[in-house]
Amino acid sequence: MKNFKIALAQFSPHIGNLESNTQKIIEQVNLAKKDHADLIIFPELSIVGYPAEDLLLRPSLKKRTLHAFKQLSEIKDIVMVFGFAHQTDDGKTYNSAAVMKDGQVLGVYNKQNLPNYSVFDEKRYFTPGQQHLVFEYCGHKFGVLICEDVWNLNTVQQLSKLNVDSILVLNSSPYEVGKPQHRVTTLSEVAKQLNVNLIYVNQVGGHDDLIFDGTSFLVNRNGEVAFKAESFKENLYFVSFQAEQAQFQKTLIAPELDTMAEIYQSLVLATRDYVQRSGFPGIILGLSGGIDSALTLAIAVDAIGADKVQAVMMPYTYTAQISVEDAAEQAKKLGIAFGIAEINPIVNSYLKTLYPFFGQRPADTTEENLQARARGTLLMGLSNKFGNLVLSTGNKSELAVGYCTLYGDMVGGFAVLKDVYKTIVFELAKYRNKVSEQPVIPERVISRPPSAELRPDQTDQDALPSYDVLDSILYAYIEEDQSQDDIIAKGFAKDVVEKVIRLVDHNEYKRRQGVIGPRISSRAFGRERRYPIINGWKPGI
Amino acid sequence: MKNFKIALAQFSPHIGNLESNTQKIIEQVNLAKKDHADLIIFPELSIVGYPAEDLLLRPSLKKRTLHAFKQLSEIKDIVMVFGFAHQTDDGKTYNSAAVMKDGQVLGVYNKQNLPNYSVFDEKRYFTPGQQHLVFEYCGHKFGVLICEDVWNLNTVQQLSKLNVDSILVLNSSPYEVGKPQHRVTTLSEVAKQLNVNLIYVNQVGGHDDLIFDGTSFLVNRNGEVAFKAESFKENLYFVSFQAEQAQFQKTLIAPELDTMAEIYQSLVLATRDYVQRSGFPGIILGLSGGIDSALTLAIAVDAIGADKVQAVMMPYTYTAQISVEDAAEQAKKLGIAFGIAEINPIVNSYLKTLYPFFGQRPADTTEENLQARARGTLLMGLSNKFGNLVLSTGNKSELAVGYCTLYGDMVGGFAVLKDVYKTIVFELAKYRNKVSEQPVIPERVISRPPSAELRPDQTDQDALPSYDVLDSILYAYIEEDQSQDDIIAKGFAKDVVEKVIRLVDHNEYKRRQGVIGPRISSRAFGRERRYPIINGWKPGI
Repeated sequence: MKNFKIALAQFSPHIGNLESNTQKIIEQVNLAKKDHADLIIFPELSIVGYPAEDLLLRPSLKKRTLHAFKQLSEIKDIVMVFGFAHQTDDGKTYNSAAVMKDGQVLGVYNKQNLPNYSVFDEKRYFTPGQQHLVFEYCGHKFGVLICEDVWNLNTVQQLSKLNVDSILVLNSSPYEVGKPQHRVTTLSEVAKQLNVNLIYVNQVGGHDDLIFDGTSFLVNRNGEVAFKAESFKENLYFVSFQAEQAQFQKTLIAPELDTMAEIYQSLVLATRDYVQRSGFPGIILGLSGGIDSALTLAIAVDAIGADKVQAVMMPYTYTAQISVEDAAEQAKKLGIAFGIAEINPIVNSYLKTLYPFFGQRPADTTEENLQARARGTLLMGLSNKFGNLVLSTGNKSELAVGYCTLYGDMVGGFAVLKDVYKTIVFELAKYRNKVSEQPVIPERVISRPPSAELRPDQTDQDALPSYDVLDSILYAYIEEDQSQDDIIAKGFAKDVVEKVIRLVDHNEYKRRQGVIGPRISSRAFGRERRYPIINGWKPGI
Repeated sequence: MKNFKIALAQFSPHIGNLESNTQKIIEQVNLAKKDHADLIIFPELSIVGYPAEDLLLRPSLKKRTLHAFKQLSEIKDIVMVFGFAHQTDDGKTYNSAAVMKDGQVLGVYNKQNLPNYSVFDEKRYFTPGQQHLVFEYCGHKFGVLICEDVWNLNTVQQLSKLNVDSILVLNSSPYEVGKPQHRVTTLSEVAKQLNVNLIYVNQVGGHDDLIFDGTSFLVNRNGEVAFKAESFKENLYFVSFQAEQAQFQKTLIAPELDTMAEIYQSLVLATRDYVQRSGFPGIILGLSGGIDSALTLAIAVDAIGADKVQAVMMPYTYTAQISVEDAAEQAKKLGIAFGIAEINPIVNSYLKTLYPFFGQRPADTTEENLQARARGTLLMGLSNKFGNLVLSTGNKSELAVGYCTLYGDMVGGFAVLKDVYKTIVFELAKYRNKVSEQPVIPERVISRPPSAELRPDQTDQDALPSYDVLDSILYAYIEEDQSQDDIIAKGFAKDVVEKVIRLVDHNEYKRRQGVIGPRISSRAFGRERRYPIINGWKPGI
């Protein structure tokens, strides 16, 4: 055995763009060679990007992949291990890793464990592999696994029994709160138990609603973490095997982020990647003086810079003066473009037009929705005219119970807080105010009682339980699949629990038309929680 | 062998409502017993309904299913074959059929072939079965299969080799154009080839975006169709085996529908079931004088009756007088409630409010979208105040290329024509006018050139190729997965094909926020065509 160096490409592909991904892979390989790396490892499906969804069914995928292979085959003097969609002559597609050197494919590994739960649909596209792959290089025996494989102890055990020194794990493992550290902790136990080095390389970047945190790492066979990359950053890292010590040298170990830092950074990355990859020159959002839009604005500025962010305050009769003041103050603090557009004339023109239909019927949520929709239409008008992306500012608690207006405050191209409960919104706002010299969110925005300001003296708690209670019920019902009876048995008021669950079930139609937003939980609305709209399931047991 | 009678329950469950489905099953069984049936057969997963999606993951499903079994076990003197989600003690779930008589479960069959393509996600929920089930009754040997099983010739062959006389096939097979007849034709060949009777029972009803046509049927072992149920109707049917002739007696054979009749009826069923199951008292829609809203209105009236349908015409400066006339004429013909609401004051109030932002910038699609959004907001206001469901009126061609306004003409709870190309919209309108004594859609609505009427003298063909050309390109790209180069090679103009494909790819973000609508094709937008929004796939090959 001799010393060798491995480059880990914590890589952010452009989904479906095999041409640019291949170019980027070549650039990374050249950087790795400059630093005298012997091997370079890319994440799962790095050529097409993860998740490519039904692009994997397009007939020319094979031709495009072969073209990428041809380009990569011109690279000399380094072993490349990368993920690709492997289409065989019998019409099957595998989720695979190639080991390539000097234009020769030394081996191909087909992923054996295909996740088809949660956000994953891999059985829609792939056939499971049946065989392990082991190759020797620099006098060292390497095995290869792909993502889900490493969570199946049986699979890892079988591979380790083939006298493998190190297992290279190619991943596109999406972020969830706490998952970066969870992977390291769990797999360090596995490495120790099976007496094998584990080198874990993960995709990074925001890809539609999924965030990939990267957080690539290496654990030595004694379970010691020898390397851990920073989360949420695209980068090329190097690790060195030292033959004398028969282990990898201890190098960068990025500190564990606390929960709010982790969530905040994940949302900034997701927002930046969505805006930039969709080609929008900037962002526009409606600032209400409330905490959701205030936090969304802070994230937007951290994602793409104050000069590219525009906010508009759209007051109505029920908007408190302090809301306007707070919105203006935050805009000034952050140095963003800010405008005010009163919606009274618009709402009045709607009411006048609708009067022949409505007559003397009393006001209800109809009139509240008109306010929200006037604002939504103004934002879309500004977006259409100037080309900026509208960020939607609603949070997970609201979306869960339908405390939001379709085509009103729900408009936009990306909903930054879509998977963030209101109680966490407060924590994130406080966190953000702590990390800069000056707070960026006015204190009053955080401390005053939340209100949609759609009626005189309205607060959210007129219609909903306190957010502490609401979020606890929602978490139990949505994230933990507890039943109504379970949740009542925990001590929550029966009528409150019944109401909340009824609202969650009833508002699937709103969520289905909701914009995408970054997933940070293990039960995000959207592709992860697939409920019918017409749903006769009776709460209770 | 002796004579016996089988009842086929072409059944429409309420998804997730195990309690009401079980009640309905009991009612059907009692009717069957009254008619002296020896067996009754229900569709796939009839207790929970298909597709129940993530309701199948709720922890109390097993308890609820057991409760249904308990109720069914009280039924005497008839063999019941029904579909259910079968959860075993090792934590697995199977898509299963139970054979029950006099409170005894005579056998359970677990579906062996689980579709996980197109609209199907069965591997998300189920484990495949491994064994066949054969049971004897009335001196006749029955085998059981579930839906996808019968399309795997290998599976059917293995079962038929067990000396089975008749195979009972429990299905929840969604409708696509031409599929009702295709099933009969194909399976009659299979029956003949394998020398076995096939009794095919299918779910019926609109369930969110999926339509189940029913069209249950029976083919004798000589390939002769002995029974075919009407499509799109919930009903209980009976077939009789005659020992003397050793075959099932020829009975009702519903005539094959022509394509437009089939599509039209499917949309009526889907609309009726969506409105009724979501509990709305009626429908409201915007009538523009154009063909899409005219056809949608006709379907709405056929679905739930003129007395429950309301239409509103919302003219603006660019609306032709003949549009208003035609809308009013159709409303009168159909006898629905009809109102007119001018949107000029609303659009003007938006323009005035936006003037400080827009300044002297020239008008563009922004101003057109304001018109569409003013209309969308009015419709939603009327819906909120009076409780009727808004039907969205856009068609598949528009939605494909994004020729529609988010939060404008895209608002609504159900998009009846979502999966219907514009060229088919014309055919359906002509079809509908033929089947009633008086045409219900004014002739001029069908014959005049389509226009969004968002600019002076605008027609759709200013921005798009003719619908014949557009739909041919869209069909090749979406339904047939052809590449840009393939389609150009067929003879379409290069710049037109490039533009259309660019629009389709670019407008995924709009479709993702689009409302659901009934699927009639084999590549409907929504759960069937899963494309990333940020999509770097380059057209071309």
